This record gives sequence, C-alpha cells and structure tokens, in this order.
Amino acid sequence: MATRGPVRVAVLGCGVVGTEVVRLLVQQAEDLAARVGAPLELVGVAVRDTSTPRGAAVDPELLTTDAEGLVDRADVVVEVMGGVEPARALILRAIERGAAVVTANKELLGKDGPTLYAAADAAGTDLYFEAAVAGAIPIVRPVRESLAGDRITRVLGIVNGTTNYVLDQMATSGQGLQEAVRQAQELGFAEADPTADVEGYDAAAKAAILASLAFHTRVSAADVHREGIMNLTADDVARAATTGHVLKLLAIAERSGDGVVVRVHPALLPQWHPLASVRGSFNAVFVEAEAAGELMFYGRGAGGTPTASAVLGDVVTVARNKVIGGKGPIESRYAELPVRGVAEAVTRYQVELRVRDLPGVLAQVWQVVADHGVSIETVRQSRAEVYGDHADLLVVTHAATDEALSATVADLQDLPVVVKILSVLRVEGV
Amino acid sequence: MATRGPVRVAVLGCGVVGTEVVRLLVQQAEDLAARVGAPLELVGVAVRDTSTPRGAAVDPELLTTDAEGLVDRADVVVEVMGGVEPARALILRAIERGAAVVTANKELLGKDGPTLYAAADAAGTDLYFEAAVAGAIPIVRPVRESLAGDRITRVLGIVNGTTNYVLDQMATSGQGLQEAVRQAQELGFAEADPTADVEGYDAAAKAAILASLAFHTRVSAADVHREGIMNLTADDVARAATTGHVLKLLAIAERSGDGVVVRVHPALLPQWHPLASVRGSFNAVFVEAEAAGELMFYGRGAGGTPTASAVLGDVVTVARNKVIGGKGPIESRYAELPVRGVAEAVTRYQVELRVRDLPGVLAQVWQVVADHGVSIETVRQSRAEVYGDHADLLVVTHAATDEALSATVADLQDLPVVVKILSVLRVEGV
Repeated sequence: MATRGPVRVAVLGCGVVGTEVVRLLVQQAEDLAARVGAPLELVGVAVRDTSTPRGAAVDPELLTTDAEGLVDRADVVVEVMGGVEPARALILRAIERGAAVVTANKELLGKDGPTLYAAADAAGTDLYFEAAVAGAIPIVRPVRESLAGDRITRVLGIVNGTTNYVLDQMATSGQGLQEAVRQAQELGFAEADPTADVEGYDAAAKAAILASLAFHTRVSAADVHREGIMNLTADDVARAATTGHVLKLLAIAERSGDGVVVRVHPALLPQWHPLASVRGSFNAVFVEAEAAGELMFYGRGAGGTPTASAVLGDVVTVARNKVIGGKGPIESRYAELPVRGVAEAVTRYQVELRVRDLPGVLAQVWQVVADHGVSIETVRQSRAEVYGDHADLLVVTHAATDEALSATVADLQDLPVVVKILSVLRVEGV
Repeated sequence: MATRGPVRVAVLGCGVVGTEVVRLLVQQAEDLAARVGAPLELVGVAVRDTSTPRGAAVDPELLTTDAEGLVDRADVVVEVMGGVEPARALILRAIERGAAVVTANKELLGKDGPTLYAAADAAGTDLYFEAAVAGAIPIVRPVRESLAGDRITRVLGIVNGTTNYVLDQMATSGQGLQEAVRQAQELGFAEADPTADVEGYDAAAKAAILASLAFHTRVSAADVHREGIMNLTADDVARAATTGHVLKLLAIAERSGDGVVVRVHPALLPQWHPLASVRGSFNAVFVEAEAAGELMFYGRGAGGTPTASAVLGDVVTVARNKVIGGKGPIESRYAELPVRGVAEAVTRYQVELRVRDLPGVLAQVWQVVADHGVSIETVRQSRAEVYGDHADLLVVTHAATDEALSATVADLQDLPVVVKILSVLRVEGV
C-alpha cells in the first residue's frame, strides 16, 4: 500500500557513515523530496550512548538508545551500525514490519545475507545494500537491474582498498610487505589490526555478497576459499612487472559446471587488463556477462562520504517505492546453485622452481606437468644470477583445474632435480 | 494503476538490436516473468516490410507494419528502430497513452531528449534509455538512482568506439589517421561513411544525453561544442606517449559557475588516468561527484547483443513498475542550468610552436601568455632535430578558460619570433 504523507526514515548507528547520512538527509531534504515524490522525515538516530558528541549535523533531540522502538516507527530503516548483532535482529524486525531496509553492513551480509534476502522477499519489502560492496561504486543496482535480462558468468573484483594500496606501494616503491602495511596504517588506509584486510576476510565477505547477487544463489563468507597477501614478497611483486603483470588481491565468483566457485587470493593480472590499472585505495568490479560482454565498475571502496552517497541513493529508491506502494524488481529467485570448492576452479599457475642445472631437467619437469593433464605455456629462466649449479625457472601453465595444478606442484616438489619451489601464484584475467 | 495479467510488450524495429531483443524476450521468458512478477507478452514487432527474413527467433506472425496500432496495444514499448522520425512520434504516442517506453535511440535523445523526458514526467510514466549511452554499460541507472543523493560535478566519457579504436591503432602501430580509419572499416568498427563518428556527431549526441542526466538540465546535441579527430596526425599521437599521455576523443559535461559546459574534442589524458587504459572499441564514462568521489563505468559501447542486454534490463524495470502500478524515481526536476559555450570551459593547452632560435624568444612567449592571465606549467624542446635556426617548443599551460587560452594562441601566432603553431591540444583529467 502506498504511503501517505512523509516517508519516515530511521538511522541505526551514528559513526562516520551514519553522521554523513544524517547530514546529507538534512542538507538535501528538498532535493530528495522532489526525487522521492514525498518528504523524507528523519524520525530518529539509534545510538549506544546519547551523550557522545555527534557534530553539528545531528540534532541531539533525534538520538535514542531504543533502536527497536525506533525501527517500529519507520517506513525506511537505514542500518549503518555494522557488526552482526544487534544489526541482524533489527533488520529482521524492520522487514517483518514491512519497512524497507538499506544497509551498508558487509560483515552481516557476507555472513548471513541469504537469510535476510529471503526474509525481505517473503515480506514483499525492499532490502538494498549498495554501500556494502565496493563502497560508493554502483554495482548492486547494475547487477540486479541493468543486467536483469542477461546471464553473468564471472565477477572479478578488487574489493579491498587496504590490500590494493599495500600491493601498489610494494610495486611502485619496492617496499616489503611489512613496511607497506606500516605505511598504510600511518596514512589511515589500514587499521591498527590489519588482519581482516590482509588475510582476506573483508574481501571474502564482499565476494560472498557479489556471488549471491550475480548468481542468485546462497553464498556466505564461510563458502569462500580465502588466501591473504601475507606471504607475498617484494620479489614476487617486482617479478610480476618483468613478465608484464601486476599482483592484485582478487575476489572471484564464477560459474563452474553446474555450480559456482568463489575465491579470494592474490593473482597475477596482465598489465593490459582493466583491473590492472586500479591503483591505491580504489576498488573495481569486473563483470563478464553473456550478452553485455565485459563491464567494469570503478571508484572509492570506502570512506564515510562515498559510502553515505551510496546509502542515500538506496534510500531514494526504496522511499520512492514506498510512495508508489511497491518494491523494486524481484531478484531472489534463488537458483540455489551448488557452491564448489576451489579445487574445481579453472585457473593458471605461475610456478618458480629452483632446479639443478643438469641435462634433461626440463624434460622431467615437462613430464610431471603432462602427467597431470596440464600443459605448459612458457618456461623461462627467471633470474640472470647463477647459484652454483642451480637455475631458477619460471613456468606458466595453460588453464586447468586448481586441483590438477596443485597436485602438479606437489609432484614437482618431490622431483629429485627440483631443489625448491620458490613461489606459486595464480594467473587470472586471460 | 497496477497491471493485471501479462505485461504487453511491443518492439518497434527489427534490425540487429531488435532481433536480439526479441530473441532474449522469447528465450528468457520464464526468468523475466519471475523478475517482473508477471509474464511478458510480446504483442508485436513493427517493421517497414514484413517480407524481409528476420531469423529464427522472430515469429513472422508477430510482424506488423502498423506501428501506431501496435503502440496502442502495449503496456511497454521498446523503440529500437533508430532515427528521429517516426521514432519520436511513436514514443510520444506511447507516453500519452501511459505506456512505459524503453529506447536505445541516441540520435533522437541527443536531438530532442528533453521534450521526451518532460512528456514522460507529465504523463507519470517511465522512459528508460540505458542502451542509448555507452551501449551495454549501466550508466543511466547509476547516475539517476545510485547517485540520487549526491551532486555530480563532471562527466568525462569515451563514448565512441570507432574513434577510440582508430586512436588506439595510431598509438600502437604508428599508422596515420586515414590508414587507421580504413582498417577500422575493414574490421567492421567503422561505417563506410565514418563522418558521424570521426567528426564527433555521435559523441556529441551522447554527451547531450549524459549532460541532461547528470545535471537535470536540458541539453541537446546542438548545444555541444564539437571537434572531431580528423586533424590529428600520427605525430600528435606518438608525441603524447613521450610526455606520458594518450590522445582520446572525450565527451565532457561539467558544471561551470552557475551553468554547464558540454564539449566533445580530442584531448591529452595522463597515462595513469583510468580512462587512458580504455582500449580498442570499448567505452567508459568517468564521473566526479561530491560525495562519491571518482567513479568509472566501462564496457562495450555498441553491438547488437550488448545493446539488447541493456534494453532488456530496462524492460524488466519498467515492466516491474507496471506490475506494482508506479514508476521509478523522479529524475526530471529540471534544474534548467544555462548551457554555456566552450569559451567558459576551464582546461589546459599543450601548444607546439616552431620559433626562431634567438636569445630572448622564451621571454617573449612567456610574456604573451602572462598577458592573458595564463601561466605556463612546462616548456620543453619537443624535437631533437634542428631546422636551420628554428627550434620546436612544447608549452603546457596551467588551467585557464578556453577563451583565454585560445586568445593566447592567436597572439602567439602573431609574434614575429613564432614561425608556426604546429599543434594545439587540450589536456584533461588532471
């Protein structure tokens, strides 16, 4: 049923993003009302402690610690508190009451998004979350709506600005990983405890959301194969450049047979790939669809103001739907594709091997690889230096399953002529 | 009022895009019905001549030459016939009857979009046109909806695949312009008559649509300052690389004082700019917004299947709105900003001058530039070769109005020590 009069908006949380959302709601009230077709009335801002100062934009009269009571008075609930609980319970309460929900909570959606999407569907209400993936970049709406008549086959994303900044620093300055992380911390691009970023947890949550969205299937962060950047060396990063690549932490969600595989790991990307030029703390999501072909969405992945911009865009859409008495396109016909392990992913490996410099070594390496049904694209000597009777080889394979490739590496390790496996990296985007 | 039963869809035009739209409507009927919340019924396809073969996807029974009669039987009208008339009259007829319209017609919207947007608003019906700008790239919906709570300050686009392919060829192969155009024609990236592309008419139409959208103001292609690529030489393209730039044909729409300036011309972009790595026939639109910061949207700018993907996404949205009995967010609160001439645009020039190699020449050049209130960022000798007593200088200015910069160039031309102005190019993206 269509709302009469103003659309009542509740904001849950008043941190960096919440404060910005409130400021924009107040400052752009007239503009927003024109777009929605009715005024937006900010009915309250739920906080843990009403005595903390909130800045000039937030009217202290609007603050309340009674989040549940606030939810019950709203047509549109904006959840920007973060964390799993009580955000999850409050969102479900709002949905059950038929309120539309806008959330920026990647942790919650990564963990339990499918439950919330299903609840919103069952209640016939909107749940929008543009700000939860890649910050200000409009990616959710294009995937849900613009590509509604298409079939997505693969999504590749740089969705964590901290790790992208760190890898970029290593590439441009030759810094080691620890040093680059320290610098990112000093500049505010990394948290004091960078674990969630550098170990790939943040990227895995976003990968789960992107996969759910792109493939209409239930994916949670626990389903995502995850490798962080902590084992990467300055040498790995520098060598990537010599072979025409850059090293990026990628979130990848793709169809694989009758299922989907979702993974987060460092990978080599060719320098000509559009994702390769995504620098510093920027994010980008590269989408491959059957009809549309290749698409990329690029922008600020984090920050209070960019995130608030994405939240406001969602508020306008769901408030407009309230005014006309409906909800946006239905996107949750869950295909329920099975989520497969990384072993099934089709990828390519670059393996650096230190071998004894004897006749016939290359033939032995070639044979081990061929025994796994894998073929080699290139072999080159990776370093000019000579180490006694050792040589370092850089082997790049053709595409094969991750299972076959990792079994190949294990067998190479056992080969008597192989002194050491120096590094193993996946190659994507080709 | 909400539609009961199936949503009746009429397709006007059955060329490359129309055929693909029909194919996708038929093949994905079940999927589309689930998303819309009601089946889509294809009630007819308007063509000029029903006897032309249309391929397997198009049921000959659905073909009709009575486009008006077909429009009158539809809830959603998909216009993919192209050209100004009769497309314009048919779209207005559909809007007046309260049907939602989806169009891919950049020529029509570039010429007379504001009339159509206003008509749709007055009738309270949807007019969607994702496919009319940058083909398959979702740009209209992000700008209209995701950025609804933000303020766009500038849009920079590579919106013509033909010219981008040609400039890319010149850069990578050293070909001259004529040769690169010929090759683009052979590969199907350029028409037999490439005027609309190389003279910037196509880009100007898209610039007008983007400007209308971004600034809620009435801009038509006739308001757009337009320069094509025909005067660019292999030398211009090669020299760009030596100064860390690439040459691109850009469509630029930006706020300027209390108005907007819209222009299409070749420009030097720094190689690190995200638009610089847009290669071949791809398109991209770079958006600067106050809260969201920098965003970029990248993908296929043309082609039957990518364009059909964008059309289908729009069909799902407007059909869904029909089912729930409303229309999408209101975007046409026309700000009616005045459209200013290119003279007011703030930009930078790179000017290559052949000068007499005499003492004091640089001081004279510097003085002429300063007399216009312009300052110089760098001066360098542009060629190692010596031409008798001549030297070639490459002067890059700081930002100033186009009016001041072009007056500066005119005065430099009159300076006795200046033999010749060899080239003048704008520098953008910094």
